[in-house]
Amino acid sequence: MTSPGNSFTSAVFPLQTMDVPGGTETVLPGGRHLFPLLPAAFAGVRRIGVIGWGPQGRAQALNLRDSLAGTGIQVAVGLRPGSASAPDARTHGFTEHDGTLGDWLDVTATSDLVILLIADAALAAHHQEIFAALRPGAAIGLSHGFLLGHLRATGGAFPDGHDVIAVCPKGMGDSVRRLYEQGGHVGGAGINASFAVHADHSGRAADLALGWSVALGSPYTFRTTLAGEYLSDIAGERAILLGAVHGLVEALYGHYRLAGDDPATAYERSCESLTGPIRQTISRSGLTAVRDRLGPGARDTFDRAYTAAYGPARELVAEIYDEVADGTELRSVILAERRLADRPMSRISGSPMWAAGRPVRAGRAGRAGRETDVEPFTAGLFVATMMAQVDEFAERGHPWSEIVNESVIEAVDSLLPYMHARDVAYMVDNCSRTARLGARRWGPRFQAAYEQIAFPAASAPADGDLVSAFTGHPVHQALAAAAKLRPSVDISVPVA
Amino acid sequence: MTSPGNSFTSAVFPLQTMDVPGGTETVLPGGRHLFPLLPAAFAGVRRIGVIGWGPQGRAQALNLRDSLAGTGIQVAVGLRPGSASAPDARTHGFTEHDGTLGDWLDVTATSDLVILLIADAALAAHHQEIFAALRPGAAIGLSHGFLLGHLRATGGAFPDGHDVIAVCPKGMGDSVRRLYEQGGHVGGAGINASFAVHADHSGRAADLALGWSVALGSPYTFRTTLAGEYLSDIAGERAILLGAVHGLVEALYGHYRLAGDDPATAYERSCESLTGPIRQTISRSGLTAVRDRLGPGARDTFDRAYTAAYGPARELVAEIYDEVADGTELRSVILAERRLADRPMSRISGSPMWAAGRPVRAGRAGRAGRETDVEPFTAGLFVATMMAQVDEFAERGHPWSEIVNESVIEAVDSLLPYMHARDVAYMVDNCSRTARLGARRWGPRFQAAYEQIAFPAASAPADGDLVSAFTGHPVHQALAAAAKLRPSVDISVPVA
Repeated sequence: MTSPGNSFTSAVFPLQTMDVPGGTETVLPGGRHLFPLLPAAFAGVRRIGVIGWGPQGRAQALNLRDSLAGTGIQVAVGLRPGSASAPDARTHGFTEHDGTLGDWLDVTATSDLVILLIADAALAAHHQEIFAALRPGAAIGLSHGFLLGHLRATGGAFPDGHDVIAVCPKGMGDSVRRLYEQGGHVGGAGINASFAVHADHSGRAADLALGWSVALGSPYTFRTTLAGEYLSDIAGERAILLGAVHGLVEALYGHYRLAGDDPATAYERSCESLTGPIRQTISRSGLTAVRDRLGPGARDTFDRAYTAAYGPARELVAEIYDEVADGTELRSVILAERRLADRPMSRISGSPMWAAGRPVRAGRAGRAGRETDVEPFTAGLFVATMMAQVDEFAERGHPWSEIVNESVIEAVDSLLPYMHARDVAYMVDNCSRTARLGARRWGPRFQAAYEQIAFPAASAPADGDLVSAFTGHPVHQALAAAAKLRPSVDISVPVA
Repeated sequence: MTSPGNSFTSAVFPLQTMDVPGGTETVLPGGRHLFPLLPAAFAGVRRIGVIGWGPQGRAQALNLRDSLAGTGIQVAVGLRPGSASAPDARTHGFTEHDGTLGDWLDVTATSDLVILLIADAALAAHHQEIFAALRPGAAIGLSHGFLLGHLRATGGAFPDGHDVIAVCPKGMGDSVRRLYEQGGHVGGAGINASFAVHADHSGRAADLALGWSVALGSPYTFRTTLAGEYLSDIAGERAILLGAVHGLVEALYGHYRLAGDDPATAYERSCESLTGPIRQTISRSGLTAVRDRLGPGARDTFDRAYTAAYGPARELVAEIYDEVADGTELRSVILAERRLADRPMSRISGSPMWAAGRPVRAGRAGRAGRETDVEPFTAGLFVATMMAQVDEFAERGHPWSEIVNESVIEAVDSLLPYMHARDVAYMVDNCSRTARLGARRWGPRFQAAYEQIAFPAASAPADGDLVSAFTGHPVHQALAAAAKLRPSVDISVPVA
């Protein structure tokens, strides 16, 4: 892909310029003080239809309704006939009685902005019916690029005569709601989002997207393209956001067990260290802080692990990116959905490390005095993999806001905290089917690369050039710029 | 795919009918007594051009030359300009001086049968030049279906006016030559082959293919289609022939190590047991013999391992088959070749188990009295995976000869003995690039499936129905029928 050009203008919202390596990017810092501008951004929109009630649908419907309260703009939820989600939607105040809950095609036909948040497989199967039901001039809203990838793979297209916009929160639906609620009393809480204008029929598509993002509570919003969002989102979840994390902790758990650790200790040094102190350090103080705070011996371990893992991780991220860009990865998802139509997907949560993890997670409350350490070997492998994704995305021309959000911020502020609470395998087994299939497809590749290539190589001395490239990397500037605008609160996830 | 119909006729060779589940298949039993019929089979062919001097090219050129000695049919080798293989070809008696060694396009232009045995990537890049150089009416010979897959993926086609035939030995090039040489003094030594007639311009294509197979020394030859060969070949090497074996031994080595074994013992129980006694038992006595010869306790271990592994292995073989049939797998190979154009593929032979294996393999000569046992857990997982491939191939409509050769005989009589001598990782790192990329892609998937799904499930009781389905499976009849015609000698591979 080529960079979409990251400057943009708004007739409604005050924008800001953020310094990034090699230039600047235009961003929209969010906040509740902007809510009075929402009617202008949503001009012409009297009803918003949120189609689907998964985690993302629920969060967006609730945030939009809260943010637009008093404006006269109605938020309605559309569900497929017989949806099991209807009772939960009613519990949250969307009801047939007041017209805010209904059949997905009816809600589509009566809304001015139709936000499609049903599962990928449902979107692939039913987008044509939904397109056909749209009222003339209604805007189509998406929260990731999957549908674009699907349309390209199948020779389809978006219908003419409609704005096609995307607002893509860089975090899970649960976080989108939880941080919005915290944002009611803590300024700046929320999940960053990218926006894209894929078709601008009205001439006002960008402001509509920006208004949607502000109403979701995004602390800052940056520009991308739908294609760029698709590539970075699908590739990212297969790499550092999910697939690589799963492969890494499985490989590390076995590694520490073989080195003599008991199961609980091996779990702590692999998974617990990663989802706990390593991710906290990155979230609060940036990537280099992980290394800087280690003593000389531990730092050498970090550097050797970093050196050993960067090459094989980069090779895998490049392979993933190629297959996502080529459509091969999406073909694989479509084939899997067909094959799994009549049987359940097997679960990966049965391996010994997750049994070992249960008491560790359960015992956290009782050992306030015993903090899990930053394990330098674990940290070196993880940071190297994260940097491999940063470098690959940069080489492919993504804007820096997208790179740091898809490679660092979404990981350390949204996904890893969730994994910390529920464990990595639970997350893989319970995320979106596209992500779940991707993690099952690529996690083992990362595991094998760590075990067969990185671990044996980590006994060699560190590569000073590679470590210097890390410590002096321009991503740290981009991350610091983004950090100024990022959520000011930790995301808390209750332990299951 | 649908079954190609497995009966065929020959105007030259005496055929035989083999009983298989649900009917019969026509086969051609080979042997040196048929060599006097070769001139009739090759009628009109005065010169055979073997393009390429990899293991398969060398073996086929040498076997063809030896079998056709005295017939007046010349065998020539064609190499690309500057090929590093020329000195070795000269050492084996193919020389520019007598016209049996030359530029690949020159040899193509002067041959009546052009056998394309260059690497897949070279075939993908240069098949159009080669097609353009063919003399009118010359036959095109292939030894696997890759080119068909590539042409389909890229919208190309074979040129009109030429026979397009395939003879596909179900073993590595080295085995094709070694067993042919043994066949000079031991009847029936050789590698079984399938043949396919993709285009029959001359009306004599089947006999030409059968003559080629007899001249290679194939103990028996069965019919398939080029598409069926492609699917079973590419899927098979990603599953039980290579990818699954690599994933299995890596998973088992870690499993036994964690259970307390020292490295040498863990290597023996995983890799050595599999490539030694387990594969010998299957080769000599069939699949059920592995289980039948175990005592009651060990048999229960086998059954539990079989039960635990069959499901996840079947799921993976189905996924592989889907992606090969869809073209997704070949897209991935093409993308990888592009990405790796300017850097070497990383090696997987550095993991600890291969270091552990070296002394085990080296010590074999000195411990004649200490035989490696059939490890029942290892055997149950391996046989389950083999049966998963057998069942998937049968469900997809492959002929039984193809199923047993691609799923059992090629494994136990060609590839596993080679792995026994050189180790599995060496084999992965040194096989064809298409196979190597496939093994790297799918081996880790099998490893993860064993570790995360099968190993935890193996503590549950065995599934009696699944075990009965194995012991009473029709594949045993097909394998016994094929065994009557199979090589009468063990394939010996010198330890490196």
